Amino acid sequence: MHVLVLGAAGMVGRKLVAALLANGEIGGTRIDRLTLTDIVMPDAPATALPIETIAADFSQPGVAATLIKSRPDLIFHLAAIVSGEAEADFDKGYRINLDGTRFLFEAVRQEGLKSPYFPRIVFTSSIAVFGEPLPDRIEDTHFLTPLTSYGTQKAIGELLLADYSRRGFFDGIGIRLPTIAVRPGKPNKAASGFFSGIIREPLAGMEAVLPVAESVRHWFASPRAAVKFLLRAAALDTTQLGWRRTLTMPGLSITVGEQIAALRRVAGDKAVKLIRHEPDATIAKIVAGWPRGFDPKRAIALGFEAETSFDDIIKVHIEDELGGKLP
Amino acid sequence: MHVLVLGAAGMVGRKLVAALLANGEIGGTRIDRLTLTDIVMPDAPATALPIETIAADFSQPGVAATLIKSRPDLIFHLAAIVSGEAEADFDKGYRINLDGTRFLFEAVRQEGLKSPYFPRIVFTSSIAVFGEPLPDRIEDTHFLTPLTSYGTQKAIGELLLADYSRRGFFDGIGIRLPTIAVRPGKPNKAASGFFSGIIREPLAGMEAVLPVAESVRHWFASPRAAVKFLLRAAALDTTQLGWRRTLTMPGLSITVGEQIAALRRVAGDKAVKLIRHEPDATIAKIVAGWPRGFDPKRAIALGFEAETSFDDIIKVHIEDELGGKLP
Repeated sequence: MHVLVLGAAGMVGRKLVAALLANGEIGGTRIDRLTLTDIVMPDAPATALPIETIAADFSQPGVAATLIKSRPDLIFHLAAIVSGEAEADFDKGYRINLDGTRFLFEAVRQEGLKSPYFPRIVFTSSIAVFGEPLPDRIEDTHFLTPLTSYGTQKAIGELLLADYSRRGFFDGIGIRLPTIAVRPGKPNKAASGFFSGIIREPLAGMEAVLPVAESVRHWFASPRAAVKFLLRAAALDTTQLGWRRTLTMPGLSITVGEQIAALRRVAGDKAVKLIRHEPDATIAKIVAGWPRGFDPKRAIALGFEAETSFDDIIKVHIEDELGGKLP
Repeated sequence: MHVLVLGAAGMVGRKLVAALLANGEIGGTRIDRLTLTDIVMPDAPATALPIETIAADFSQPGVAATLIKSRPDLIFHLAAIVSGEAEADFDKGYRINLDGTRFLFEAVRQEGLKSPYFPRIVFTSSIAVFGEPLPDRIEDTHFLTPLTSYGTQKAIGELLLADYSRRGFFDGIGIRLPTIAVRPGKPNKAASGFFSGIIREPLAGMEAVLPVAESVRHWFASPRAAVKFLLRAAALDTTQLGWRRTLTMPGLSITVGEQIAALRRVAGDKAVKLIRHEPDATIAKIVAGWPRGFDPKRAIALGFEAETSFDDIIKVHIEDELGGKLP
């Protein structure tokens, strides 16, 4: 099986590629070729498999057709401009997140018009497709009222994925990822950054800023769980989905206070003392509009699994990023 | 106020233009200029107002910008490829219903980037944005699961309308029209055609075919009600909408049997006898996937009104199409 990963240079993309190489197969079929692409040149991991890395902007006309020409059997579409940037740069967000996605889907359809071609496409959507009003636990049938351009673009991607799948142009499945924590790497300016920062920095002996109240509740899964979602989606029998092709992934609904309690259990008071409370009304207001929890019955029934405690999410970070022990 | 109508040559478009000229104003502001456009040249109605008619395909790059250059204050966007054609011709449906809509919205945004410009856009959506599973009465918060390319394109239009409005590029409002009955004119091949045909043809002394069971339930409003929805949407204080910019319009949920009973009350047994029952499994299957009724609380609270009996819907047809009396 030939696997194409769009967005292979991103945090989840890199972990996905490592997992593909470690597993060597998807749903019992051997992976025998990999193509990795991103806007920046993705790293080529060490492997005996034929592997191609491509730096390309799939939102430029013709680029998606070039990527699809080799007829990959499985396509992971993780490429996106993130929420903050899509809000700051309206044109860029629509170009990458909407046009790029549509070019990809259309390239697959056009390839199939030449001779039969029916790949699986795994599309990463986001809980940003939901906006107000939001209950504490959002059902699978909740309506989509995105309050960002990014959420709008992801909701449109879900609609296109469903229609192209219904028309028989490819076998699509969308997964709405929770907020990924603990994100490895340096602090960034994303409004959601603190959810990872208040764990990651103290574990590394550094100070972290908490800009919201401890009562704030949000929805989480680890990077390791995100990769497992993608692999599960790639292997799933999609006849179980009907035409509702996108699933809200499972996750953990907890408060910031509960995150901190988990940090204390795992790393002690000295870690917790590195969290500095510095209320920021702007961030608090943004975060107040975000989902607090879900009841993702469909995904759970289909075998998708996430962590059930934040202690476990912290332990995943220690195992995968810190070599299995605290510094 | 300068009013632009896209889709002005269609059945609803023509009735809307007649109503605009009859009323002379929208929400207390005088209409002083009209631009009518469609893929075929719209009729220019008799009026003393400056009026321009344009045959143009707004799905071609650059055309929307030309239409917007004169900065209309109010834009009715009724232009669309209908459901059956969008399903039969995938490219054409996406080109007109998605690209065309996006070109229009983007042309307004680009005009506003030159100097402040903030028109009202009234976008006609459809109950085709809903698909399975469907309760008997669909709430305003029901999720969108279109099962046609047309419904997908309309749902995407709703998302774009909301995002462009939220970003302040224009003041958008979407209205989801019920199935319009009684449609004037000749029978057509649309799967929904019989809903009008079983009334229109017998009233004209002609035979009509009923391809489904009398127990089939559906959601209706008259062409006159559709025009009133558009005028109400054009004048509405949109701050009442929040960011949920599209409303399901009110309508009447009745069965085909109840339609026929109304026909009997209005036009007698001799009209009803002209309905020939000729079951068609294909049409029955299509119609089984359609909405049966709604609970459009938001639109009703905002003053939108439809007929409350099918007798009234038939009477509207007799008044507006048959000169007020049965032949």
